Amino acid sequence: MRATVYHGARDMRIDHVPDPTIQAPTDVIARITHACICGSDLWPYRGIDANQSGGRMGHEWMGIIEEVGTDVRNFKKGDRVISPFTISDGTCEFCHKGLQTSCVNAQFWGGLTNDAGQGEAVRVPHADGTLLALPASVENDERLLKAILPLTDVMVTGHHAAITAQVGPGSIAAVIGDGAVGLCGVIAAKRLGAERIFIIGHRENRLKLAQQFGATDVITAQDEQAAQEVREKTQGGAHAVLECVGTVDSLNTSIRLTRPGGAIGIVGAPHLSALPDLGYRFFQNITISGGIAPARAYQPELLQDVIAGKIDPSPVLDMTVDLDGVPAGYAAMDAREAIKVMVRP
Amino acid sequence: MRATVYHGARDMRIDHVPDPTIQAPTDVIARITHACICGSDLWPYRGIDANQSGGRMGHEWMGIIEEVGTDVRNFKKGDRVISPFTISDGTCEFCHKGLQTSCVNAQFWGGLTNDAGQGEAVRVPHADGTLLALPASVENDERLLKAILPLTDVMVTGHHAAITAQVGPGSIAAVIGDGAVGLCGVIAAKRLGAERIFIIGHRENRLKLAQQFGATDVITAQDEQAAQEVREKTQGGAHAVLECVGTVDSLNTSIRLTRPGGAIGIVGAPHLSALPDLGYRFFQNITISGGIAPARAYQPELLQDVIAGKIDPSPVLDMTVDLDGVPAGYAAMDAREAIKVMVRP
Repeated sequence: MRATVYHGARDMRIDHVPDPTIQAPTDVIARITHACICGSDLWPYRGIDANQSGGRMGHEWMGIIEEVGTDVRNFKKGDRVISPFTISDGTCEFCHKGLQTSCVNAQFWGGLTNDAGQGEAVRVPHADGTLLALPASVENDERLLKAILPLTDVMVTGHHAAITAQVGPGSIAAVIGDGAVGLCGVIAAKRLGAERIFIIGHRENRLKLAQQFGATDVITAQDEQAAQEVREKTQGGAHAVLECVGTVDSLNTSIRLTRPGGAIGIVGAPHLSALPDLGYRFFQNITISGGIAPARAYQPELLQDVIAGKIDPSPVLDMTVDLDGVPAGYAAMDAREAIKVMVRP
Repeated sequence: MRATVYHGARDMRIDHVPDPTIQAPTDVIARITHACICGSDLWPYRGIDANQSGGRMGHEWMGIIEEVGTDVRNFKKGDRVISPFTISDGTCEFCHKGLQTSCVNAQFWGGLTNDAGQGEAVRVPHADGTLLALPASVENDERLLKAILPLTDVMVTGHHAAITAQVGPGSIAAVIGDGAVGLCGVIAAKRLGAERIFIIGHRENRLKLAQQFGATDVITAQDEQAAQEVREKTQGGAHAVLECVGTVDSLNTSIRLTRPGGAIGIVGAPHLSALPDLGYRFFQNITISGGIAPARAYQPELLQDVIAGKIDPSPVLDMTVDLDGVPAGYAAMDAREAIKVMVRP
């Protein structure tokens, strides 16, 4: 089969790789119908994270099950499934708690060990614990499938930011970052009842989309200036801050615009170049929470709302490519010409 | 009157200073009967924090009101009061939320602006919002007064660590640091229902006291070794970690021994020399909370329990000095010959 393989910074190739086969009785094989390129894929693409050459790419995918291991109980051939962006066994303490990312058997998609989403097919380890079946009613509804696809990562990640930032009815929320996760964070904050939602970013088309999703206030200033504007407009800061970037500047901006006693939900993978302002955090009793989103825990609830038409994150997918178009998709996201790329292998 | 004045590293003196007078109608004047030297006073004592020379010292005190401003409603001459370690107006959004440390009119005791606890008397700004009256029944009960005195700081600070670390019935708690705050953190964790309480420290007499207070497991290893021991003994780490030191090493130890999805309540004033391991925090969804304790919010509840004999933090006060003995008290705490010094001016 063909799949996206990392050969170094800015060198993604569509290579011929071995077809996946069942290796353990808990595996399934799925044919990929939809996948995405993630903002976090840009870290290795840009050479900031050192991925190993030859590793597979893509942790966001939807597909149809083609083959089922003998111990798999929840799925059969022909089922349409979505995957969370991590693999989990579904049976350990942390899976039962809804923290599947800390599963004692957690694995990531791709790299040198596993298949990955940006290809024709995948072997799915721990299929029963990992995958979520979609109802038959969604089949052939391409508009709905596109709205469901972000539940593989960005929509659940934005939701995790909102949950861990403790957004609730009446909250003043602030979202740092206007990438796909930040935009989904706006959807999530609105869904959880935020009364006022600041979006801090600087790309006009994305900020407009944020407003469509429910942002009430747009801040285009950066760093301390952005924090000051939010503090002034709210007489003290936002109760709930969704940190959707991961740099030390974005973390410091988050800390500085949080209301005393408020909380920050961090979902931007941390790439910190300096000590963040944990002194201010301390004296204002600001809670830093969040982390890698336990996508599998949130998918059922959010899927219901997508199917019911209550939320629709599909506008973040503003470019579509086939497998041969994946390298161009990376380049478009790197240049910020696309918010997020959908792949149809 | 006489009061403790900072003249530089390891140079505390008992100087003659002006008697306090009412300056605003919301002030009271109190005569100090009991005060403490705080572990955090050691930061300037050791020259690590640069206090201004000439500044007053002491933020933990109990006393008798001698004079009352015309707008003070809650207190009268002769009332015995305890103070939290910060001053707050009692009327703003944050005071109403129980986050008096972020009061819009918050002030600290001492320095060049305010009187302070390690002296004969103090002017108390915003007396109605700041002070807590003790019932007449405690008067002349020196044992009980000594048990109440830690509610000015260390006992409420240990409690804040436990609350923000989310200790609850059945929790596995871990307390980093065997100073007075850490020891009070053990009392607080037990009071909140922790089933197992690790104390991480290295002074034998303090670890014994921790066990008297309810610690079930003593760890004398440091850093990653300590974290590994806790992870092994708990199959994954503590649910609730009370960080009662404030260095980057103690924060990293805290992060590394927290169970995935758990929480750290930081009450050690941050003196961070390097970037803490926020990457591990991210991937294990560990919440970092806590901060400067809103003592005034917790004092009424904890006072009830001290008076009822349910908790008794007085053993942390293992040395008593008069005002002339304050410099020797600092030296004893600096040399770790005393856990915490009580001052009887």
